[in-house]
Amino acid sequence: MPKTIGALIFPGFELLDMFGPLEMFGMLEDTPEIRMIAETSEPVKSRQGPATVVDAVLADGTAFDLLLVPGGPGTRTEVNNAALIEWLGEAADSSDLVATVCTGSALLARTGRLDGVAATSNKAAFGWVVEQGPQVGWKPEARWVEDGKFMTSSGVSAGMDMALAAIQRLYGPAEAERIATRTEYDWKRDPSWDPFAKIAGLV
Amino acid sequence: MPKTIGALIFPGFELLDMFGPLEMFGMLEDTPEIRMIAETSEPVKSRQGPATVVDAVLADGTAFDLLLVPGGPGTRTEVNNAALIEWLGEAADSSDLVATVCTGSALLARTGRLDGVAATSNKAAFGWVVEQGPQVGWKPEARWVEDGKFMTSSGVSAGMDMALAAIQRLYGPAEAERIATRTEYDWKRDPSWDPFAKIAGLV
Repeated sequence: MPKTIGALIFPGFELLDMFGPLEMFGMLEDTPEIRMIAETSEPVKSRQGPATVVDAVLADGTAFDLLLVPGGPGTRTEVNNAALIEWLGEAADSSDLVATVCTGSALLARTGRLDGVAATSNKAAFGWVVEQGPQVGWKPEARWVEDGKFMTSSGVSAGMDMALAAIQRLYGPAEAERIATRTEYDWKRDPSWDPFAKIAGLV
Repeated sequence: MPKTIGALIFPGFELLDMFGPLEMFGMLEDTPEIRMIAETSEPVKSRQGPATVVDAVLADGTAFDLLLVPGGPGTRTEVNNAALIEWLGEAADSSDLVATVCTGSALLARTGRLDGVAATSNKAAFGWVVEQGPQVGWKPEARWVEDGKFMTSSGVSAGMDMALAAIQRLYGPAEAERIATRTEYDWKRDPSWDPFAKIAGLV
């Protein structure tokens, strides 16, 4: 069971990508410590405006069990941030579970760790994401994809379904159902549920 | 159209109550400025842990068009915070639209502004919420309730459906549908959709 979650943030991260999954993980009976991690210690402004306090910087290392990476327009800059991508690769190697939301999978793809791994991402940005990791086994139609220790989700809201699936995997279905009910969330239990792939013209 | 959103936070606010709706409002083509408001200027820690930077304090006034109030375990303390409740009443009076999520409606009920108004709240905490405003027209089965300028939603996730309904009301259905698709969100368009009322034994 994860005792600590490392949640990576960067300027222009997408609010719900980050705080949807953290809502779910933060509702666990056996609550993990959540650490917001960024390149520098300054608060990080989201795409929508609100800024989040940083608990640890990249240089503090990768001492956590579950790594969570959001997307957002900021990923367009961060895919070219060598220091962040290098840290992300090391963090992925040392984590038991690596979860990305939306275009967060583009950042992870740039580390090379998704090469040969099945993965998905945001449907409206899918073409750009695929370019960030041509060797990744990209799946255009999926709410989320699990392959070994990697869980990658589709756009924004899909992170919540992936988080509940991760909770189900780690703590069992009863705990996932309890949290879905407490948050009054219509949890998509089926990873193949994805009407947005069709809307985006991917299938 | 709201040019500014005032989003009230307090220690122990629920992450998704706040950042689900702000995700939706922050995706508007005509993006309003979001101001995070708290009693003091120190960053505010959520129930789940992550802390948010404060943009304005209560003493800075109520100069915004849309007021958003989240719930969370912190509301159990804040219902007895006279300064916050007084500010909230004034902010509700001066806002064109007042939106609460989850037990945020308990805070608004304490101002008296919901007396005689139809409203809803979190289903698992419903009994406690009703005690905070016995004259409110509480509806136990509803995803969200609109009554004049007040929009109150059920627990946690329901805030996203309410936010999209507010966007539909202010900007039209096409803009709400665009944002639901961009966030890959299975928007509940029907305010009477509420399986959680039955689970909680309220109906």
